[in-house]
Amino acid sequence: MGTILPASLTRDSAEPLAALQAIDVDLHHHIASWQDVAPYAPEGLRHRLARPGGPPLASHGFKIIGPRFGEAPCPTDANGKVGHPAADPAWVKAQYLDKCGVDIAILSGPVLSLGVQPNHDMAATIATAGNNWTLATWVRPFNCFKGSILVAHQDPAQAVAEIDRLGDDPGMVQVLMGSASEMPFGRRQFHPIYAACVRHGLPLALHIGGEGAGMSPPSTAVGHPTTHFEWYGSLPQVYMAHIMSMVTEGVFEKFPTLKIVLCEGGIFWLPHIMWRFDKNWKAQRSETPWVKQRPSTYILRHFYHTSYPLELSSQDELAEILEMVEGERTLLFSSNYPNWELGDPFTMIAEIPAALRRRVLVENALAVYGERLLRPHAC
Amino acid sequence: MGTILPASLTRDSAEPLAALQAIDVDLHHHIASWQDVAPYAPEGLRHRLARPGGPPLASHGFKIIGPRFGEAPCPTDANGKVGHPAADPAWVKAQYLDKCGVDIAILSGPVLSLGVQPNHDMAATIATAGNNWTLATWVRPFNCFKGSILVAHQDPAQAVAEIDRLGDDPGMVQVLMGSASEMPFGRRQFHPIYAACVRHGLPLALHIGGEGAGMSPPSTAVGHPTTHFEWYGSLPQVYMAHIMSMVTEGVFEKFPTLKIVLCEGGIFWLPHIMWRFDKNWKAQRSETPWVKQRPSTYILRHFYHTSYPLELSSQDELAEILEMVEGERTLLFSSNYPNWELGDPFTMIAEIPAALRRRVLVENALAVYGERLLRPHAC
Repeated sequence: MGTILPASLTRDSAEPLAALQAIDVDLHHHIASWQDVAPYAPEGLRHRLARPGGPPLASHGFKIIGPRFGEAPCPTDANGKVGHPAADPAWVKAQYLDKCGVDIAILSGPVLSLGVQPNHDMAATIATAGNNWTLATWVRPFNCFKGSILVAHQDPAQAVAEIDRLGDDPGMVQVLMGSASEMPFGRRQFHPIYAACVRHGLPLALHIGGEGAGMSPPSTAVGHPTTHFEWYGSLPQVYMAHIMSMVTEGVFEKFPTLKIVLCEGGIFWLPHIMWRFDKNWKAQRSETPWVKQRPSTYILRHFYHTSYPLELSSQDELAEILEMVEGERTLLFSSNYPNWELGDPFTMIAEIPAALRRRVLVENALAVYGERLLRPHAC
Repeated sequence: MGTILPASLTRDSAEPLAALQAIDVDLHHHIASWQDVAPYAPEGLRHRLARPGGPPLASHGFKIIGPRFGEAPCPTDANGKVGHPAADPAWVKAQYLDKCGVDIAILSGPVLSLGVQPNHDMAATIATAGNNWTLATWVRPFNCFKGSILVAHQDPAQAVAEIDRLGDDPGMVQVLMGSASEMPFGRRQFHPIYAACVRHGLPLALHIGGEGAGMSPPSTAVGHPTTHFEWYGSLPQVYMAHIMSMVTEGVFEKFPTLKIVLCEGGIFWLPHIMWRFDKNWKAQRSETPWVKQRPSTYILRHFYHTSYPLELSSQDELAEILEMVEGERTLLFSSNYPNWELGDPFTMIAEIPAALRRRVLVENALAVYGERLLRPHAC
């Protein structure tokens, strides 16, 4: 399988590119103490972040079952006390990135329910403080860590302001929104956010996790699940709904260069969405005349997917599904570090066809994120 | 491909079985006038069914785009006025069943949002009246039509009473619930309905259509879609949520013989549900110790799917997906007559591998519904 890299990347840097082993597009760095983050917040709401236990955040009741970190490495102090495996950037670099052969990791952080928090000013403040803290403590000291501009989408104007504030920072490589939402992402009030992504040449990453919290509707279309097991398994439905909405509302006709990375959703549901949607479009497209292409054309052109967790199946079936979704181009390696409760992310890569692995580990991410991913930004 | 039929069916009737051409498990017979149905309602609420326009029913705003009936045959009167193609059983038998080579059709009717109607007594009354009217005017006069016991699941006690009232009627072959629901179908309050299905040896059919109406939550997990195109395309998410819920809550450990037919949902989303769910189960099953098998085992054993509409794809990809979901056993022919806005249901059958067609057209339905489907019931 040949290279997928744009000429702008390979012209001057063929040798360093060949040396890259893995790019991880989804590493959850951890806020050990909100009191460390609070000084990075705008003054007005700083005291709310600094309160014991952190800022007031609506949460759902679904918590990971069993050992949260699986086989991920964990630090222990002199007294044998186990610490959080994603709280210290130097430790994460040494014990995860360097040991596992990961060259670059994109930080997606621990706060994935901002977009369904009822207090939108508080949510925007948390986003700003978190972004500043991430830049100062993780990104600026280490070229291997790249930042995400986290935004709270329920107030699109504040989200756009945050993207414009940080969109040209060389340490930031994407915009990040939680997928939990009061309404699907095709709705027109969100379009200024997409315009801002395009204006700064930034992909938009969505991440599951806040579904069922705060202002979120029930996390399935028939109401509330009862267990984490049921809740977590149902989450790809959220991506399906957002994809249907964005295609239907003409987002990609309006923003033809917008790229969207769907984190932690798997891929096996994608053929269904493409083909059911194509069939309906053939018969029903008069309702949405601005949807000019088959829905699957937009979906394959604009959406990217991450490798943790890939659904459990046979290698043959995985290969068939990867072919259906053009995985050789659309699948990006993600570790979900340190949340390895579903297994080792490198084992998941070992299960995909050998010919695709380099693409998934390195090249697809470079093609999506471009030069920004390689440019040194540390100071 | 060999036969899948149980010995109890083939022992005495190998010859008539071989003559069968097609069994249609989803025909939408139409209520032309509620005033015809009202006399079949219990007296207390009869006047509410007889009002002009029919009983008060909450509805969503999503209406089929374009020609609703596609290429389905339509009756015209002496003045050239086009009538509804599913209002007259004799006409439907002559113009659809006999002409298309359909031997038996299961009636699923026009009212698919009963389970989200706020007035549960009204909903139960409509179910009872509709069932009586269907039996009297469609089923009793014609052996080719088999009835569904429609129930309103928001009041499980009334639903159970209706199943017990009609469950042994030889003209009834399944219980039918709209999939639109305030809560997912694994919840324990619904278990008495499943017990009643099992008690009478009846499969349970679910049918999409009421999503977003009445007491239904938004029809996606991130809120309301804006067009019929988006709404209709999203509906399989409802089946995914119900499957996750029923498996998670242990419905199939409690009711090991329960069979569920999912109407009009397609099949391409099923591998995703099976394999994501299996992966999560491996890591997280301590939360639901009563889920003793892999989720995919329950899903393949208990759920059946219908052929209208099959997602649009290549024949190779369709064959791959059919293999993944054991379509040679789990896929049943459905016409969705007369709503052919997405195409001709027989063309969809022509797209599946030739070796599977007889199974899908005839044998799988016989295996699911059993002898009841063949027994003459007319009087």
